[in-house]
Amino acid sequence: MGKLFVIGLGPGKEEYLTIYAKSAIDEADVICGYTAYVELIAPLFPGKELFTTPMTRELERCRHALSEARQGRTVALVCSGDAGVYGMAAPVLELLPEYPGVEVRIVAGVTAALSGAALLGAPLGHDFCVISLSDLLTPWETIEKRLRCAAEGGFAIALYNPSSKRRSGHLRRACDVLLEALAPDTVCGLARRVGRAGEEARLLTLAELREAETDMFTTVFVGAPATRRVGGYMVTPRGYRTL
Amino acid sequence: MGKLFVIGLGPGKEEYLTIYAKSAIDEADVICGYTAYVELIAPLFPGKELFTTPMTRELERCRHALSEARQGRTVALVCSGDAGVYGMAAPVLELLPEYPGVEVRIVAGVTAALSGAALLGAPLGHDFCVISLSDLLTPWETIEKRLRCAAEGGFAIALYNPSSKRRSGHLRRACDVLLEALAPDTVCGLARRVGRAGEEARLLTLAELREAETDMFTTVFVGAPATRRVGGYMVTPRGYRTL
Repeated sequence: MGKLFVIGLGPGKEEYLTIYAKSAIDEADVICGYTAYVELIAPLFPGKELFTTPMTRELERCRHALSEARQGRTVALVCSGDAGVYGMAAPVLELLPEYPGVEVRIVAGVTAALSGAALLGAPLGHDFCVISLSDLLTPWETIEKRLRCAAEGGFAIALYNPSSKRRSGHLRRACDVLLEALAPDTVCGLARRVGRAGEEARLLTLAELREAETDMFTTVFVGAPATRRVGGYMVTPRGYRTL
Repeated sequence: MGKLFVIGLGPGKEEYLTIYAKSAIDEADVICGYTAYVELIAPLFPGKELFTTPMTRELERCRHALSEARQGRTVALVCSGDAGVYGMAAPVLELLPEYPGVEVRIVAGVTAALSGAALLGAPLGHDFCVISLSDLLTPWETIEKRLRCAAEGGFAIALYNPSSKRRSGHLRRACDVLLEALAPDTVCGLARRVGRAGEEARLLTLAELREAETDMFTTVFVGAPATRRVGGYMVTPRGYRTL
């Protein structure tokens, strides 16, 4: 019986791979994943069989990976960021009972909240929430409620999927919800294309964030009330300075 | 002028290091950090100068690292997990204006929420919060408020620092707060000593979690209302199965 590694690649550059992720892909016979990510890493692992599917074909990808493993092969199913955060680990484990005997290993990776934060400074230095603004699989009312709870709790917030070709205006609507509880000058940040060509980091206020252009390669950071600008960095202190 | 890398090591085993973290430590003249973590990785990087301080001496450690870099050396300040999540990135950036000219690079790593989740399955497959139960630097009332907001928002939750030698009963008190909003049979998980000798993962209910023993090497996961047990795994679905 084969083995399926579900692997988080980090933001997309070889140096952000963990050593574990690299050795798991090395061990695999076949690499499965979303077309864009497989194309990004395939040159690092020449000679592997590739199976790619476009976005929204996640279940097909998981089933193919499980079925190849069922036939005795070693499979690397790759995701950007972490395998568990909006990644393929959950759907693979949900389908696993249909593929008895397959051994699954989840290989954690650096999710966009962490890689984007490192570029901006330390926006997630204290308690934080991660919220996706995609309403493809989650009702918008649920997203709004989570934004309200996150602001009410004084969390720093990382927002995934602030916009896409099909969804525009979501970030503006999210900012309007956050502005009910947070000051317009709350320190915010944008991290774009981390670890790839065109990498960008930008600090701005929550009021400015409402007007900002983002795309599917952007992760948005909304500071807690304690978050400050220090030099060019966005920093959420834990409180060591007061010790 | 020197360079300071603030580096997340991941859970503590070489294979969870990113390639970037490994090459940054290789490049460094001196490794600074909490004694226990430096001892864990020092054998991998023979010949480096080491500077260690015990817990609660974080600012001293940061100042030493900055001051060595100011003198032209290349310094690796290492943290467990990620450099930015309850790590040294925030205090270093707060102190940086006192050490002009030092170049700082934050090197993200796999934080315990991600490495522990990978061991348990996919507990953080949808929106989630990360909350520390340490009230050393945060008033307990703030922690309670965040627990309430996280439960109210239907987030999955990763709890850091569930207990320590000085603090006991915090996890029980946190569970009591969560039980005001969440069902006693909410799926929960414990991940302990991930990537080290004695690694353990355990699924339990929120009612059972209230009675559980934890230590400073444990990360606690509290499921969202949608979180389920599938096989031996804790899974928070994103909703792909309903597409």
